Amino acid sequence: MSAVIKVNLPSESYDIAIAPGNLDKLGAQMASLNLGKKVLLVSNPAIFRHYGERALNSLKDAGFDVTNCTLGAGERYKNLSSIQKVYDKALENRLERSSTMVALGGGVVGDMTGFAAATWLRGINFVQVPTTLLSMVDASIGGKTGVNHPQGKNLIGAFHQPRLVLIDPQVLKTLPIREFRAGMAEVIKYGVIWDADLFAQMENCDRLDQMRYIPESLVQTILERSCQAKADVVSKDEKEAGLRAILNYGHTIGHAIESLTGYRTVNHGEGVAIGMVAAGQIAVELKLWDEKSQERQVNLMQKTGLPTKLPAGIDIDAIVDALQTDKKVKAGKVRFVLPTQIGAVEITDKVPSDTIHQVLQQM
Amino acid sequence: MSAVIKVNLPSESYDIAIAPGNLDKLGAQMASLNLGKKVLLVSNPAIFRHYGERALNSLKDAGFDVTNCTLGAGERYKNLSSIQKVYDKALENRLERSSTMVALGGGVVGDMTGFAAATWLRGINFVQVPTTLLSMVDASIGGKTGVNHPQGKNLIGAFHQPRLVLIDPQVLKTLPIREFRAGMAEVIKYGVIWDADLFAQMENCDRLDQMRYIPESLVQTILERSCQAKADVVSKDEKEAGLRAILNYGHTIGHAIESLTGYRTVNHGEGVAIGMVAAGQIAVELKLWDEKSQERQVNLMQKTGLPTKLPAGIDIDAIVDALQTDKKVKAGKVRFVLPTQIGAVEITDKVPSDTIHQVLQQM
Ligand SMILES: NC(=O)c1ccc[n+]([C@@H]2O[C@H](COP(=O)([O-])OP(=O)(O)OC[C@H]3O[C@@H](n4cnc5c(N)ncnc54)[C@H](O)[C@@H]3O)[C@@H](O)[C@H]2O)c1
Ligand SMILES: NC(=O)c1ccc[n+]([C@@H]2O[C@H](COP(=O)([O-])OP(=O)(O)OC[C@H]3O[C@@H](n4cnc5c(N)ncnc54)[C@H](O)[C@@H]3O)[C@@H](O)[C@H]2O)c1
Ligand SMILES: [Zn+2]
Ligand SMILES: [Zn+2]
Repeated sequence: MSAVIKVNLPSESYDIAIAPGNLDKLGAQMASLNLGKKVLLVSNPAIFRHYGERALNSLKDAGFDVTNCTLGAGERYKNLSSIQKVYDKALENRLERSSTMVALGGGVVGDMTGFAAATWLRGINFVQVPTTLLSMVDASIGGKTGVNHPQGKNLIGAFHQPRLVLIDPQVLKTLPIREFRAGMAEVIKYGVIWDADLFAQMENCDRLDQMRYIPESLVQTILERSCQAKADVVSKDEKEAGLRAILNYGHTIGHAIESLTGYRTVNHGEGVAIGMVAAGQIAVELKLWDEKSQERQVNLMQKTGLPTKLPAGIDIDAIVDALQTDKKVKAGKVRFVLPTQIGAVEITDKVPSDTIHQVLQQM
Repeated sequence: MSAVIKVNLPSESYDIAIAPGNLDKLGAQMASLNLGKKVLLVSNPAIFRHYGERALNSLKDAGFDVTNCTLGAGERYKNLSSIQKVYDKALENRLERSSTMVALGGGVVGDMTGFAAATWLRGINFVQVPTTLLSMVDASIGGKTGVNHPQGKNLIGAFHQPRLVLIDPQVLKTLPIREFRAGMAEVIKYGVIWDADLFAQMENCDRLDQMRYIPESLVQTILERSCQAKADVVSKDEKEAGLRAILNYGHTIGHAIESLTGYRTVNHGEGVAIGMVAAGQIAVELKLWDEKSQERQVNLMQKTGLPTKLPAGIDIDAIVDALQTDKKVKAGKVRFVLPTQIGAVEITDKVPSDTIHQVLQQM
């Protein structure tokens, strides 16, 4: 059971390698990429405790000269101070332009390591070893890197493509359940926006709420098809000029909810799940898709243990206000990604505020 | 008297517009680029006092919604704290992906504004209005942006191409003489590495040590040909894979001298001037070029009022050591750009340390 998915970009291409046991092949796989000898492995303390040594050993065995650094765990460390820590390590170990930073961790570690790699010596090599489901199927692919501004998420960043994304599904065994479900929200998203068959395969599985109930082969399929979906979209639109916007399905309202609840009560995947339900319902109201499909979407979300209702007490006006300040606003208009059938969406900036209000009120 | 030089890159292309009076045409020229309405003009207090109002008026007249911010003047403010100031302004004014940051200033303002533009929302539009000779002929072209790490210059940065470089030679009238000469060092560099005719035209001018002694038409020629030289090299090698290295002529030893003297006693242009003399002499020792050409180079430097000798008391061993830590070191080997004739250079990593020592000792 193993797969390699190619991300083909005009400027550069790279592989996403997915197979159980891949972690121990990190060094060997990097060795074929014509990288310099020096490697800086970036992680956080918890992940490093689980998987750091295996990654380091694999790199050393392949002949790399490797050092490591750990950054504080969690979104609140995703800032320029953490990046400075990486810079200091890079300087201390005299990383050169041909050197490589390897991110071993979830999206937080990945985004930060990618940004540090993008901006150290104006760009050095970067390899992703994602350890959360969300980072495997989403954050590690596509070259978006960055950190937060005290007043807004991911406002500071750069596009910087990895040279390799190495996925080992086995590391998901230690992932907390809530993090697993958050990743599943993105997987369901790919089903809705791109891959009806992936959606159907998940519908056919009895339980999706915990990793251990899902057959290994379905986990592999979920990873392969999700990565393929993201790779397809990203290849067609590297710099987010058009198509790539469909990946924001569920994210417009999702971000608003995450942000209004202080990024704790509702995590990203949960926000996206609620956002997808809302977007689906808006699409129903606008007669873009049918109630049956919306029901299937809601059911799949529920089977995964994801929320499908607004958190109690949230201020609906505040959500609608927050939509206005979202990064994706173009010339003051809120753009929505709305489903038209399982496997297809369209983008519109013509959703009446009344409809948004009404749908949110009923959730 | 006006010229437009095209920088053609695989990914994007842009114009360098050179003409007296251009500052008042900033808004009009930007208007044709299909940019968003919002503009953030970044400068420093001194430059803004001279030229800020004209730039702002020109932008407003063209219909842009413009705000401005000033950063501390000089290299020691070229750091991430200044970048944070720009980020804060960008947030305050809700810059969008289609918005533009305009750098009005020398290389310090240009590099920082470019880096902020490269990393805000993962890259927004960027326009250069260089106000020093050095930034006109060098820093503003080619897309290198960045800031310093406390322990090293330009270690943090990104490639981000401007949408337009707008040059108004008249702003050079207020430039301090020493800054003017520093820029001339880069101009002479282009003569040696790329454009023998530019070199000859400067040889034919009686005085080059102050801007006011140089005929306006020669100033225009110097700007045009220097920008053309940089544009040629950069177009052929956007990401510094090969050819672009020739722009480092004089810079290897130059940087070491700048750094060892604390970036004050010897400024960048002066360091480069001394570095070019050293590189020329090394080339003479290695029989790559003749003494006559080296003499012409030294004479032109002297006519411009640039130093051609090492600063008194500098430690030659320390220079040679510093070469080892230079960013341009590849796999531990120091690469030198050495002239072979006026207008042509070659790159080599085979300069014996003894030769470097000996040449420096005789300077
Ligand atoms: N670059 C992109 O395209 C992109 C896309 C989506 C999200 N993101 C970013 O990703 C971040 C979220 O990423 P995330 O959801 O992976 O969260 P995360 O990186 O914060 O990881 C979640 C938690 O799980 C822990 N963890 C990670 N792997 C583990 C494992 N195998 N076993 C046990 N514990 C493990 C982490 O230490 C952390 O506490 C956000 O900052 C978001 O902005 C980026
Ligand atoms: N990006 C690149 O490719 C590149 C290339 C070369 C140098 N650089 C960078 O450029 C910087 C040096 O740039 P610089 O030499 O322009 O120095 P600078 O930006 O510090 O400007 C020099 C001084 O002149 C003042 N000044 C600028 N324009 C003026 C004017 N018209 N009238 C009066 N005063 C004026 C400034 O306030 C400053 O005090 C360095 O940080 C260097 O790393 C970048
Ligand atoms: Zn997401
Ligand atoms: Zn220079």
